[in-house]
Amino acid sequence: MTSASITTATPLQDDLKAIIAPVKEELAIVETWLTTNLIDDNPFVGELLSQVFQSGGKRIRVAIALLGSKASLTEGRELGRLNIIQAVLTELIHTASLVHDDVLDSAALRRGKETVNKRFNDRLAVLLGDLLFAQASICLARIMNPVVVGIYGQVLGDLCAGEIKQMRSQFNVEVNWEGYINKSIGKTASLFAAGAHAGAILNAAPDSSVQALKDYGVNLGICFQIVDDLLDVTGEATELGKQPGSDLRAGVVTAPALFVLEKDDAAAKRLCELIKTRAIATDEGSLEGISIIKSTGGVEATVNLAGHYANLAKESLSKIAPSDARNSLESLINYVLVRTK
Amino acid sequence: MTSASITTATPLQDDLKAIIAPVKEELAIVETWLTTNLIDDNPFVGELLSQVFQSGGKRIRVAIALLGSKASLTEGRELGRLNIIQAVLTELIHTASLVHDDVLDSAALRRGKETVNKRFNDRLAVLLGDLLFAQASICLARIMNPVVVGIYGQVLGDLCAGEIKQMRSQFNVEVNWEGYINKSIGKTASLFAAGAHAGAILNAAPDSSVQALKDYGVNLGICFQIVDDLLDVTGEATELGKQPGSDLRAGVVTAPALFVLEKDDAAAKRLCELIKTRAIATDEGSLEGISIIKSTGGVEATVNLAGHYANLAKESLSKIAPSDARNSLESLINYVLVRTK
Repeated sequence: MTSASITTATPLQDDLKAIIAPVKEELAIVETWLTTNLIDDNPFVGELLSQVFQSGGKRIRVAIALLGSKASLTEGRELGRLNIIQAVLTELIHTASLVHDDVLDSAALRRGKETVNKRFNDRLAVLLGDLLFAQASICLARIMNPVVVGIYGQVLGDLCAGEIKQMRSQFNVEVNWEGYINKSIGKTASLFAAGAHAGAILNAAPDSSVQALKDYGVNLGICFQIVDDLLDVTGEATELGKQPGSDLRAGVVTAPALFVLEKDDAAAKRLCELIKTRAIATDEGSLEGISIIKSTGGVEATVNLAGHYANLAKESLSKIAPSDARNSLESLINYVLVRTK
Repeated sequence: MTSASITTATPLQDDLKAIIAPVKEELAIVETWLTTNLIDDNPFVGELLSQVFQSGGKRIRVAIALLGSKASLTEGRELGRLNIIQAVLTELIHTASLVHDDVLDSAALRRGKETVNKRFNDRLAVLLGDLLFAQASICLARIMNPVVVGIYGQVLGDLCAGEIKQMRSQFNVEVNWEGYINKSIGKTASLFAAGAHAGAILNAAPDSSVQALKDYGVNLGICFQIVDDLLDVTGEATELGKQPGSDLRAGVVTAPALFVLEKDDAAAKRLCELIKTRAIATDEGSLEGISIIKSTGGVEATVNLAGHYANLAKESLSKIAPSDARNSLESLINYVLVRTK
């Protein structure tokens, strides 16, 4: 498995370009939708949306949704309007949760740029997040499919539940693997799964394809979250677009720290102490924490864990018919695994 | 028309009890739903919900939803599970928007108690609001009706659009009546209307009844917002459960100020100056603003305007069949008109 730290950003962007090739045209339509005011005729809403979506983002969830929809169609059939809207709403929910998360985390940087809460204030960030959720709800209504409404309703709940679990387990060293994976599903994989398989439902694909794409999304989402947690330990601020070590400082125990803590040795005891005494929240403490993780194999073990879920995602794909879209979904797994931000 | 300032709280609470009598049992079921975790099995979510809903609230929107549903049924038929869920989701959206509004307004008091943002912090308030929206989405999914999803999706959009309009018109004396009424629809009447008529759709009531209940909700909602704006000028902190004059201080021009500003006299010019120079944001300035409004007939004109929309709400009701529920909806108009908080 390739370590997350050895690949540079530019080839990765080229990789992503190749991955999305089968849905390139649809992606352009999604971009237009993302900044379209679906609520009323107030042009300011469109301006706000443009500001949010111009600040970048890799659109991985859009790619998953469009490719998942395409992979569920029989060869030669084209994606429909509902597939586009489902991709749009997946990205809207993701962006809304990012904007609110940055308020929750008092984050100053996101994707290398100042966050909405930092650039303006928490108030505008709350309103913008709500606006994005509202846009997503209107998309959901336009899809007119009660099953899909149920899927995304549960995603919204999972996102909150994930945040609550994380908030309640800060500076708590009793976190176990089950709790960590569940939290990762809530925070990330639930939306990945919805993105990956809701289009197949709309396309009336066979149940086996729907389930395979759902499994793909869950496993890829967990893999994505593990890599995210790894990058918080191994990453550089310039590449991450945010300060590394922020999880540790906030007392959030993720995979790299869990691998250290589960051993009953001196390193585990020291890391445990740093967290319990909240020394981990200081510059010195977080540097020591990162150093312990790096020197005791926490990084390698986390890379392997991410690889495990990447393999599960790959296996899920084997249950749907081969196509360009399925190939792209497979390439996306590697992209998620070796990304550096 | 009775002035909003001459009735005391206790008889009003008795009034409300009598009004909700036709749906008393269903209201109790709604209360249980409001604090039920619909997302997962984490008991902490239930605790958070209990904290939010134990802090009171008159449940006017629940009453509107249950009574609207009941009034749309032929005599003798009982409310169903979907009617309960629709009432629950209406209150959830209202409460979510209150919790986020208090962050937007940096409000310290709500219903006479400390707000979530004041008692804890903005971060928890954002998360709680999102949690309530997520619960509402899950309710919406359970209703399994695409038209109702569309109605509430638009409500969420209208709530944000109303906030944005208000934010952008602060300290702006160019606000006109059309803008004021539109903002009131977005902030308040859109959810009132959804609450009032979505149940009739679920009950497969005739289109004329659905439309009549929608009109009732819009007009009652505008009336409610006008009375709210009036109370901000005439109310006392002890009764309101929040500081009066907060709209004026924030430079938000509402009906009582609009009645003054639309005249081209000395009082209008002085109020205009107070707002433009932002002197209105000070203790002295806001007291002078309130005094100008009270001495130039702004209060009486606003009471009359609220009465106008109350009459429109009453007229809308005449288009549905008589019943106990319809009588209660009519009594609710007076309740909204003479409330003091």
